[in-house]
Amino acid sequence: MNRPCPLDNVRIVLSHTSHPGNIGATARAMKTMGLSALYLVNPKSFPDNEADVRASNARDILERASMLGSLEEALHDTILAIAMTARPRDLSNRTLDARLAAKELLEHAAQSPVALVFGRESSGLTTAEISKCQLIVHIPTNPDYSSLNLAAAVQIMAYELRMAFTETITGQLARPTVQPTIQTIRQLASFHEIELFYRHLEQAMIDSEFLDPKQPKRLMQRIRRMFARAQLEQEEVNILRGILSALEKRRSR
Amino acid sequence: MNRPCPLDNVRIVLSHTSHPGNIGATARAMKTMGLSALYLVNPKSFPDNEADVRASNARDILERASMLGSLEEALHDTILAIAMTARPRDLSNRTLDARLAAKELLEHAAQSPVALVFGRESSGLTTAEISKCQLIVHIPTNPDYSSLNLAAAVQIMAYELRMAFTETITGQLARPTVQPTIQTIRQLASFHEIELFYRHLEQAMIDSEFLDPKQPKRLMQRIRRMFARAQLEQEEVNILRGILSALEKRRSR
Repeated sequence: MNRPCPLDNVRIVLSHTSHPGNIGATARAMKTMGLSALYLVNPKSFPDNEADVRASNARDILERASMLGSLEEALHDTILAIAMTARPRDLSNRTLDARLAAKELLEHAAQSPVALVFGRESSGLTTAEISKCQLIVHIPTNPDYSSLNLAAAVQIMAYELRMAFTETITGQLARPTVQPTIQTIRQLASFHEIELFYRHLEQAMIDSEFLDPKQPKRLMQRIRRMFARAQLEQEEVNILRGILSALEKRRSR
Repeated sequence: MNRPCPLDNVRIVLSHTSHPGNIGATARAMKTMGLSALYLVNPKSFPDNEADVRASNARDILERASMLGSLEEALHDTILAIAMTARPRDLSNRTLDARLAAKELLEHAAQSPVALVFGRESSGLTTAEISKCQLIVHIPTNPDYSSLNLAAAVQIMAYELRMAFTETITGQLARPTVQPTIQTIRQLASFHEIELFYRHLEQAMIDSEFLDPKQPKRLMQRIRRMFARAQLEQEEVNILRGILSALEKRRSR
């Protein structure tokens, strides 16, 4: 049986890209490193001749790209989403450098889809977008000029993914009987399952008057950050929702 | 005495570049990683508006670029020159991957100028050019499509140089301050505060009949593992206990 290549499970998600040339260059950067799944969330102009030109012989990636109206749709069935940021902000999501993030992505990609999310050229990802991801990746740069071009950032990450992939293969060949690690046994919850939990929790918080629905933003963001760090497993989401339901049931008697 | 930064001693040499846009993108790729010495050997068109556009805020690198008529002149005072190639050919030079080549370059750059040499977009370096270099570097790529864009190849090498540079510095400092910012700002909850939360949660789970007090062990262990991964902050424990109290209060009304 052919095992699928974990690189096929790594999605590159570009949110609200302004310049179609960057989409083309991203496709080329992906293909040179063996990535193929490109997801475009509300690009300003696509398809576009400029994208085709910059893609060179990676136009097949553009042709098979998924076009989506929201980040949620792009992440729906992923078990891990990592947000790219140029400025590690005051957020307590765990921040990894490019090398560690690539290893983490690849480990989980052996099982299920994972995503690497890039924001607008001008301003990067919004706080709301970042809060949909479990981890943050930061590419170490010159502190005086950290303005990596979008496709250049994709290129570095794609390169690190390929390096991690190559190491896995060489590692497997050198050590054929290494135990599957604890990490790979964990059955992580999907983006959608976790979103349903957040919705459930938010409703319970509103019903119990802990949360004022007129200004829910900061509190839900804090809660998202906290659970993002835990990287919830499927069974853990079930336990959390079970607790919520039990507490609600007693209440309504 | 200020020691010069070894990155200042690393030259990026572009030989016979066809597209001025690639020269601009190279300047930007260099500057994001702290490189500054650009050497152009017989570029087809330079200066050029397309180069300026793609350089973005790295035009200072273009303005200070050295224009030369031959590769020999660009390498004149270097102690090490490494040739970039997409196809490791039947050549007797030692071939390194990008990571090892960056380490080797940086080691020598502490003393004297070194160079990383890139050829034409279409055909790469000639055999004559490669023979002027001591080593060959090959960036691992997808065997089915290895056509890295010129500036993308520069970006990967510049990134590996910066990573090697950062490792040198952190190694020198014995790494006391790895990622000090975000981690230390977090006000983590104490062991005792977290234990009080677990007790609170366990009692709420028993009261709502989600947990059978006769065999609580496995469930509480799972919950502990999950929150342990999150490394709870003080304020997060307060939020979690606040939610529990709100849900309990409604219940008892």
